[in-house]
Amino acid sequence: MNNKNKQKNSKVDSRIPSGFLELLPEDQIAFNAMFEAIKKTYECFGFAPIETPAIEFTEVLLTKSGGETEKQIYRLDKSGDDLSLHFDLTVPLARYVVEHYEELTFPFRRYQMQKVWRGERKQRGRFREFYQCDIDVIGTDNILVDAEIPSVIYEVFKNLGFDNFTIRVNNRKVLNGFMEYLGISSMSREVLRAIDKLEKQGEEKVAEEIKVFGIPDDKIKKILDFVQIKGSDEEIISQLRSLGVDSVLFETGVDELSKVSEAIAMFGIPKRCYSIDLAIARGLDYYTGTVYETILNDYPEVGSICSGGRFDNLAEYYTDKKLPGVGISIGLTRLFYKLKEAGLIKSGRATLSEVLIIQMDEKFISESLAVATQLRKSGINAEIYFDSEKIGKQFKYASRLKIPFVIIIGETEVKENKVSLKTMSTGEQKMMFLEEVISLFKRIG
Amino acid sequence: MNNKNKQKNSKVDSRIPSGFLELLPEDQIAFNAMFEAIKKTYECFGFAPIETPAIEFTEVLLTKSGGETEKQIYRLDKSGDDLSLHFDLTVPLARYVVEHYEELTFPFRRYQMQKVWRGERKQRGRFREFYQCDIDVIGTDNILVDAEIPSVIYEVFKNLGFDNFTIRVNNRKVLNGFMEYLGISSMSREVLRAIDKLEKQGEEKVAEEIKVFGIPDDKIKKILDFVQIKGSDEEIISQLRSLGVDSVLFETGVDELSKVSEAIAMFGIPKRCYSIDLAIARGLDYYTGTVYETILNDYPEVGSICSGGRFDNLAEYYTDKKLPGVGISIGLTRLFYKLKEAGLIKSGRATLSEVLIIQMDEKFISESLAVATQLRKSGINAEIYFDSEKIGKQFKYASRLKIPFVIIIGETEVKENKVSLKTMSTGEQKMMFLEEVISLFKRIG
Repeated sequence: MNNKNKQKNSKVDSRIPSGFLELLPEDQIAFNAMFEAIKKTYECFGFAPIETPAIEFTEVLLTKSGGETEKQIYRLDKSGDDLSLHFDLTVPLARYVVEHYEELTFPFRRYQMQKVWRGERKQRGRFREFYQCDIDVIGTDNILVDAEIPSVIYEVFKNLGFDNFTIRVNNRKVLNGFMEYLGISSMSREVLRAIDKLEKQGEEKVAEEIKVFGIPDDKIKKILDFVQIKGSDEEIISQLRSLGVDSVLFETGVDELSKVSEAIAMFGIPKRCYSIDLAIARGLDYYTGTVYETILNDYPEVGSICSGGRFDNLAEYYTDKKLPGVGISIGLTRLFYKLKEAGLIKSGRATLSEVLIIQMDEKFISESLAVATQLRKSGINAEIYFDSEKIGKQFKYASRLKIPFVIIIGETEVKENKVSLKTMSTGEQKMMFLEEVISLFKRIG
Repeated sequence: MNNKNKQKNSKVDSRIPSGFLELLPEDQIAFNAMFEAIKKTYECFGFAPIETPAIEFTEVLLTKSGGETEKQIYRLDKSGDDLSLHFDLTVPLARYVVEHYEELTFPFRRYQMQKVWRGERKQRGRFREFYQCDIDVIGTDNILVDAEIPSVIYEVFKNLGFDNFTIRVNNRKVLNGFMEYLGISSMSREVLRAIDKLEKQGEEKVAEEIKVFGIPDDKIKKILDFVQIKGSDEEIISQLRSLGVDSVLFETGVDELSKVSEAIAMFGIPKRCYSIDLAIARGLDYYTGTVYETILNDYPEVGSICSGGRFDNLAEYYTDKKLPGVGISIGLTRLFYKLKEAGLIKSGRATLSEVLIIQMDEKFISESLAVATQLRKSGINAEIYFDSEKIGKQFKYASRLKIPFVIIIGETEVKENKVSLKTMSTGEQKMMFLEEVISLFKRIG
């Protein structure tokens, strides 16, 4: 909470609630650039945009959720309908696909990038309002799509400027099949939740957590050894096949994992950016096949920056139609915050103006306007400083906002039908024709 | 409410609450294109992006509002803080400027395009969730900025493809000065609210409404005659000056209106797109000078599609600092809905893919992937249809989504190291090298 603006006399405090992120323009511009890069990548792979209302019937949102979600949901206090803010984009997608089933074409490839809200308990780096950037392919069980998804993840993070990251892949059937083989299928859900914490909490703590469910020590050891099988993808697959696990589910899972792994190379993802990791379980119950997590290798503490998986049945609460699919989600707000914290977001310009037009005297306003119009017509973002009194103040404005160029219009410029262009980074100033300025901008892009 | 998906057995209904707009991908794409055009125009004029949380302290949101807003606000039902959804972007802007005052540079030119929520009563074409697209310039009382705003409005609607629209301009000081002169200043607010309805309800009804406040008939006639003074901008200004209205406020208003009107020509707005209209009052109390409305001349029933004005004091509830400024807002959701209703939005492609890649047999998957990767590297949105069984089904998919081109990869194509390109609109199909396809796309943009 920021106290500096606290007012005496009856002014209202200008702070925002905790758990909400609000950025200055320079950071907003950096945030929006990331948002755009993700969006463009999604579009490049043929995902179509949809948007769903932030507010839905509470009954629709809470169908597939446990108690935790119900506690976190923001309910609206209005007489009449029982409404709430959506807490993710997957539940609304399921509802959307059922509602518009007849008008959609399947496989339905959609992206959706919206804010969601969760009344989480206060914690540093946890947000109550955040952007999710989701893609899903609905209405196909083709395993090639499971292999395509990591190629989208790869392209997204490459386009965001990352190089050193790993997309970890696993398959829920492999895990559940192994539990079946150990005869602890009924505990599968709880065990997977515990395994998900292996990296953060270590072997001992996870063993303790599993023990609580009454699973004997020898089986706990088997589980922990199993999820920590290491090696190249081929080695892991062949180890899995040699374990002699007697479960059809397990065998199907290994086959799928193997196929995804083979296909992934074809999709052009470098080997270093991808690996099988049997400890990836993903908390959500509704995943039934391939699951993904993505880690920045230099910042493992950030946790998974892009997660998802395959599901057999997206919308069972709304329809009898079977809708299998696969999807992922990027929590952009948290990612941005963590990158900023790690010093990886450099605050740049506080505006998108490429040129500030400065007048030596207000009598040159019509010349300034003509110059601005020409620049804008050429696709150059141009801004005029209308208060022409103090030149120093005008330059200070440009430099505070980090506008890269200033055009100065004065007596001489108007007489010669030219403008003076100052490059703010070097201080260099040159009189030239406006056409020359425009070609210069086109050259430097 | 859509009944077609109502389920027997205990399925949850997939409908959304009334008053919320949800689009199919083809309409979402059209909507997003409008959103982008507005955003790009704002950026071109040097407005910087900010975003504020959707949720704020209720106390912050309700400071400057009357009872109507309080009734419409969506309050959150969570123990602890009293929070609500924002109902516009102006109140959050005021709060933002005060909160970040020291870190911002003034004049602060910001754009903000977010959803806002109002629990309005149900009415066709009224939405409870809608996008506002706002710009404001804060921290300047330079009248040139009042003239710049219409040039942004003009550019926005030109870029949205409109040609026949009128930006109507008035000045609150002119109206309030005239009320002062008539000796009915204390009723000024109510009279302005009534006048705002003149176009919709006609002279008689407005007269009745004003009469209720105890204003005598002769003054009502004077008011109605006054706000209906017609003519060119110059004629209106000279008529105003010849009325002999003894009010400093009035004179200041006429001077401002005259200056804005003169400057507007310099800003390159064609005369036909702009006019003074003394009947434009704008409901909101906080406007103190220039006010704007924008009308589509062919669709007057849509009402104002872009409104705003100048204010002396943006954030008086949060700070003692005086923050004068001027701004406008476009209600995009309603505009889109009305244009769609008028048949002006043509539903086009249901995806942004420019090419669908079809395989004659699944064994060509690696060739398909290589082609997709090459296309994407050249900035072409390319999608692969992974289920290669039925060619007919694949083409049907492309034609239902209106993907303009299909690339077919089969035995012959692979042998000759080419692809077949089918133009869906003409049915024309041609085998060519991938490089030729890419150059073709570059040519057609």
